[in-house]
Amino acid sequence: MGNFIVGQSGGPSSVINSSLAGAFCAARDLGVDKIYGMRYGIQGFLKGMYVDLKEQITCDRDVEILKRTPAAFLGSCRYKLPAIEGNDEVYQNIFKKIDELDIEVFCYNGGNDSMDTINKLNEYAKKIGWTKTKFMGIPKTIDNDLEFTDHTPGFGSAAKFIATMLKEVITDGNALGFSKQQVIIMEIMGRNAGWLTAAAALSKDSECEGPDLIYLPEVTFDLDAFKAKMKGLLEKKDVVVVAVSEGVKLADGRFVCELGSASDFVDAFGHKQLSGTASALSDIVSSEFGVKTRAIELSTLQRCAAHISSKQDVTEAFACGYAAVKAGYAGETGKMILIDRLSKKGEPYAFGLSSHNISEIANAEKKVPLEWITEDGTYVSKEFISYARPLIEGELPPIMVNGIPSILKIK
Amino acid sequence: MGNFIVGQSGGPSSVINSSLAGAFCAARDLGVDKIYGMRYGIQGFLKGMYVDLKEQITCDRDVEILKRTPAAFLGSCRYKLPAIEGNDEVYQNIFKKIDELDIEVFCYNGGNDSMDTINKLNEYAKKIGWTKTKFMGIPKTIDNDLEFTDHTPGFGSAAKFIATMLKEVITDGNALGFSKQQVIIMEIMGRNAGWLTAAAALSKDSECEGPDLIYLPEVTFDLDAFKAKMKGLLEKKDVVVVAVSEGVKLADGRFVCELGSASDFVDAFGHKQLSGTASALSDIVSSEFGVKTRAIELSTLQRCAAHISSKQDVTEAFACGYAAVKAGYAGETGKMILIDRLSKKGEPYAFGLSSHNISEIANAEKKVPLEWITEDGTYVSKEFISYARPLIEGELPPIMVNGIPSILKIK
Repeated sequence: MGNFIVGQSGGPSSVINSSLAGAFCAARDLGVDKIYGMRYGIQGFLKGMYVDLKEQITCDRDVEILKRTPAAFLGSCRYKLPAIEGNDEVYQNIFKKIDELDIEVFCYNGGNDSMDTINKLNEYAKKIGWTKTKFMGIPKTIDNDLEFTDHTPGFGSAAKFIATMLKEVITDGNALGFSKQQVIIMEIMGRNAGWLTAAAALSKDSECEGPDLIYLPEVTFDLDAFKAKMKGLLEKKDVVVVAVSEGVKLADGRFVCELGSASDFVDAFGHKQLSGTASALSDIVSSEFGVKTRAIELSTLQRCAAHISSKQDVTEAFACGYAAVKAGYAGETGKMILIDRLSKKGEPYAFGLSSHNISEIANAEKKVPLEWITEDGTYVSKEFISYARPLIEGELPPIMVNGIPSILKIK
Repeated sequence: MGNFIVGQSGGPSSVINSSLAGAFCAARDLGVDKIYGMRYGIQGFLKGMYVDLKEQITCDRDVEILKRTPAAFLGSCRYKLPAIEGNDEVYQNIFKKIDELDIEVFCYNGGNDSMDTINKLNEYAKKIGWTKTKFMGIPKTIDNDLEFTDHTPGFGSAAKFIATMLKEVITDGNALGFSKQQVIIMEIMGRNAGWLTAAAALSKDSECEGPDLIYLPEVTFDLDAFKAKMKGLLEKKDVVVVAVSEGVKLADGRFVCELGSASDFVDAFGHKQLSGTASALSDIVSSEFGVKTRAIELSTLQRCAAHISSKQDVTEAFACGYAAVKAGYAGETGKMILIDRLSKKGEPYAFGLSSHNISEIANAEKKVPLEWITEDGTYVSKEFISYARPLIEGELPPIMVNGIPSILKIK
């Protein structure tokens, strides 16, 4: 039996380390000799940076703390492998290392950009006839935008934080609403897919009205319609609450944040750095209606608030990591683990795992179905709530030391 | 025995309702007939808005959920009573209601602006020779800026959220630091007193380096010195973290946020609405050093994140509410409850309660002692850590329903 290596890639999440814990435990349970972890994903691996995970995770308590540790324990990267054609040198470098370390299973944990890495490595292996290493993808993204899987590890915990925080923010806002009318606009991550922003609706229950308006990037943002909605709401409510995705766009293709003072920063994948959607809308509401506004940008908090992870999410993330390693050692390659919803509508939630060809997943994006968005584009349907609610259930409280959560750290 | 009324005032906190629960339980335990709660503080009371708290809090489970409910259960206000001289009508109105409801003890829960209300009502009572009602203040403010008390209920929970979130944010930032150097600037509440911003230092432990720089409003902000510090840090670190108070000022008296695009909104107490300090500094760092920056504004999250309250804070908030009612029925008036630190340096933390004349507390502000700030004004001393650490210890996890915290709501 050959050795195992795992890497973490892309934006971290609260449960990416649960998948790492699952992958580690599977390899350990299978009796794998060397269990390696790439430092800073494929970018670090290219520079020869990796650790022996048996030296890092030395007991079952370490596994439990790793499950509760936010962000990538091994370090992550935003690095896209170049096209195979014309870049043999890069791939030769990687495969030389794979050979040296005697890797039988190579797992990479990430979102759609990261699955492109697994896809390319698998394609290159085919090209050179390299069969001794199996390449498997472990899904991860708070954005929930991977195709074929019912949902992605990371989404549930981010959604739980958003719903919890929004309920608390609305409760706070209402406390002072009588004193002064106010509009609260919360900006949530999600460039092209509005899953996380839709999760704002999970804050609504018999104790909290939830947001009044929810704007997803799946629907073109109509500024006049927004102003008209806001006018109507301000006529009857002390506190109006809006949840808005960072990625909402106007009909002319501009981001809503470009109405304000957006940054022109572009990341390694060519994505424009978005921020300021809430503050742009807040400025508009404030100047149009003369009302007090508060723009709240959840920023990276939503992807690292492991102190309020979803137990369901942690469990599934662990299971995905475990399954990827088992599948790899069973001979599968070029695939990503999927979470399948086994329960039918109305039944108690249950999930299973399967796998799917990664070439169809890499670089593809799953958006919120338009039928789950209300006709006027300002809220989500009951179907979305039924879909998302089970994913935020349960807690895995952190181990608290000196009043703050304890985490596992690279030695 | 006459009746009891309690009001909540000023910016909410995660534990203001623990004080309400404590006040309610004390009145109930004393056998008080009618236990009233003002809606929206003195502002609502002036309009005749109050509720019967025995109808709202009907069992001990309600008390427990109230302790876990963020923001003011009764509603709060930002309303300052006018000067007694020349405004007899306002005071006559209040005392007429106090007489009608047969109030023996009148408690008000808030910060220094709110203590002004108790002070004025007590002064007016003296002026007209009204002795049947006792006026007592219950301390509350996340800002921790009340005089004479060791600290204030609300501070510990906000500090715990800040330290927890910052540790998680730093962990997240480090995960991607290898891929791209980055500066994270977290903006924390505190206009003139930097207690909460200082609490950022509580994120530092053997697993987390904590922030590199901490800027409090007690020290004049020197932009050139900041740039020089930043230059040095960027030469040796992948991720540089700054915690900054919303209220930091330049030597010429301008707020640092005025370097960016600050709002000109002024609240009812004449306080300028501050925001954008982190983004102003972020813009400066980004243009000066060409590095990726992330401005995170904790906004109201820090005062309402009851899902990670400090158990110590909840306990003390409850005790303060309880003690104020007992003191009032014992005949004390015109006083606020104080938290006293009974433990000496190095001993396990212990607290006791006493009371102090409210006239010396109202409108006064306690700042972070300069000897607890490092000489160059960019960090806090070990003495601050020893002072603050016990206040964030322990948790009182929320009762979770459908994946989010349950709260008590006005019926």
